[in-house]
Amino acid sequence: MTGLAVSLADIEAAAERIRSVAIETPLVESPALNKRLGLRVLLKLETLQRVGAFKFRGAYNRLVQLSDEEKKRGVVAFSSGNHAQGVALAAKLLGIPALIVMPADAPKVKADATAGYGAEVKFYDRLTESREKIAAAIAEERGAVVVPAFDDPHIIAGQGTAGLELVRQAEARGAKLDIVMTPCSGGGLLAGVATAVKALSPDTRLIGAEPEGYDDTKRSLVAGVRTPMTPTHRTLCDALETPCPGELTFPILQATVSDVAVVTDAEVAEAVRYAATVLKLVVEPGGSAGLAALLAGKVDTRGAGALGLVLSGGNIDPEQFAKILRREL
Amino acid sequence: MTGLAVSLADIEAAAERIRSVAIETPLVESPALNKRLGLRVLLKLETLQRVGAFKFRGAYNRLVQLSDEEKKRGVVAFSSGNHAQGVALAAKLLGIPALIVMPADAPKVKADATAGYGAEVKFYDRLTESREKIAAAIAEERGAVVVPAFDDPHIIAGQGTAGLELVRQAEARGAKLDIVMTPCSGGGLLAGVATAVKALSPDTRLIGAEPEGYDDTKRSLVAGVRTPMTPTHRTLCDALETPCPGELTFPILQATVSDVAVVTDAEVAEAVRYAATVLKLVVEPGGSAGLAALLAGKVDTRGAGALGLVLSGGNIDPEQFAKILRREL
Repeated sequence: MTGLAVSLADIEAAAERIRSVAIETPLVESPALNKRLGLRVLLKLETLQRVGAFKFRGAYNRLVQLSDEEKKRGVVAFSSGNHAQGVALAAKLLGIPALIVMPADAPKVKADATAGYGAEVKFYDRLTESREKIAAAIAEERGAVVVPAFDDPHIIAGQGTAGLELVRQAEARGAKLDIVMTPCSGGGLLAGVATAVKALSPDTRLIGAEPEGYDDTKRSLVAGVRTPMTPTHRTLCDALETPCPGELTFPILQATVSDVAVVTDAEVAEAVRYAATVLKLVVEPGGSAGLAALLAGKVDTRGAGALGLVLSGGNIDPEQFAKILRREL
Repeated sequence: MTGLAVSLADIEAAAERIRSVAIETPLVESPALNKRLGLRVLLKLETLQRVGAFKFRGAYNRLVQLSDEEKKRGVVAFSSGNHAQGVALAAKLLGIPALIVMPADAPKVKADATAGYGAEVKFYDRLTESREKIAAAIAEERGAVVVPAFDDPHIIAGQGTAGLELVRQAEARGAKLDIVMTPCSGGGLLAGVATAVKALSPDTRLIGAEPEGYDDTKRSLVAGVRTPMTPTHRTLCDALETPCPGELTFPILQATVSDVAVVTDAEVAEAVRYAATVLKLVVEPGGSAGLAALLAGKVDTRGAGALGLVLSGGNIDPEQFAKILRREL
């Protein structure tokens, strides 16, 4: 894997850095889900991570490595919500000033939580403004360090610690993971987890899950080159709306990922309901993308005995959650 | 503790019997909750137990000990929902015919799940009929064994396995439990957990939580004798509507329990919302009674460093859950 941005060693180093602050989230099984799908599904509950999503791992791994000088100048990040919260909390814990650039239509719970952690929040119009340009301008103005949501080796390595835990926890339960699945947006989680998993368990198949209309990673993998798309509509999966895989994440995905399942909003809503009513877990739409693919029969699990599934976040707006529970969505 | 119905040895034996079928549920911490309450709160997630509540433990421990003759004759149980599901699943796994007597107004999700496990369900009118009489009549008719929801040593011992796990899991995380809390209805969970906890950690304080209007355990402990009450209204906590502590459970509670907190429906709804939005967990109203008491400041935690809190079940009707999320309840 020469030339790829992240190695197992980077992920192990990240695990050390975040050990005292991040949660080693539980790995659980549901007999009901296992029975329905015909194999052991080991659920990695990143919904129980600090800030309610895996993003805290990468954010902390990145911020803790800033020099004292950089820490003083502060950080700026752009995010639809979970990376925002991850950076905001990490910055708070490390005493670093943080400014988060968020779409004006980001879920209110995510915006409020971000501000609640003490970060400064600047909203922008998703359709007419470029978040990257805004963040870069602010960074220049303040000398702040930009913290990308996925295209950074320390961010990817941080997310990969979830994969490290997953493999070890599965082993402890006597399960050999034939498949590992995570949702996919810019590809940070999938790339990090895939790096860890492939290094420890080369025969394990890695599968991503994207929403319909935002299946840029799938198309890019098929095309063999990063292929941005222009979204024509929104998706329930507010956390998975990145329209192009990352520069650093894509080569990792090319080297490690077998397939990407594409799920409809209806399938995602069904997964959110299933998680709540059967698994007793609150999972946000984007966080349930992998589960949606499995429940919809979109993953070839023939011959697989055990599958590791990352439920990547639980930051769902209560109003939206209520609508989904009532089948209004 | 001479004369009490259940000992630590009974609970350890129960743990062996249920090991291959029950889930060793996770113990998790939420930094947000710890910060809010000012101590470590170790959450025992019985929401993730089979059938979505701790009841499976006691039901299986009881049923697996039936003689072959008894198994053929089948079992009958009366329950508002979680014990019903526990018995229905245990009976299914053991090939035992089961009839469950449920209130006609039991949450639909619980009734459906019970029938879904293959049990026969008979509904009765909570206000005009006596469930005990109905169950006894059926038992006589069929020669079936009655499986009480709490007043049985094997049932109490089964529930106690959650306490055994709690203490060991807390130890493994370097936490000495100053307090352990569980919701309380007939007292099976609290009595079983208290027996295990007090045997392993005599200085730990045991605290129960009951809904307003159904605080029969608290009143009984104060009076020094079992004191049934006549409920004047319903509570959100459909799982905690037993109006009198059990004959077997009460002496155990007298010997082990320090206090019982009493919570309003509003406090319970707040706890259900908190569990969903902050903890990312689906907890039913009765299952959240302990959390409700803590969030409402009704538990004296001064001087306590760590508290073990059993979240006893997650079987909440989606419609009711949606209402609570929307603050309509």
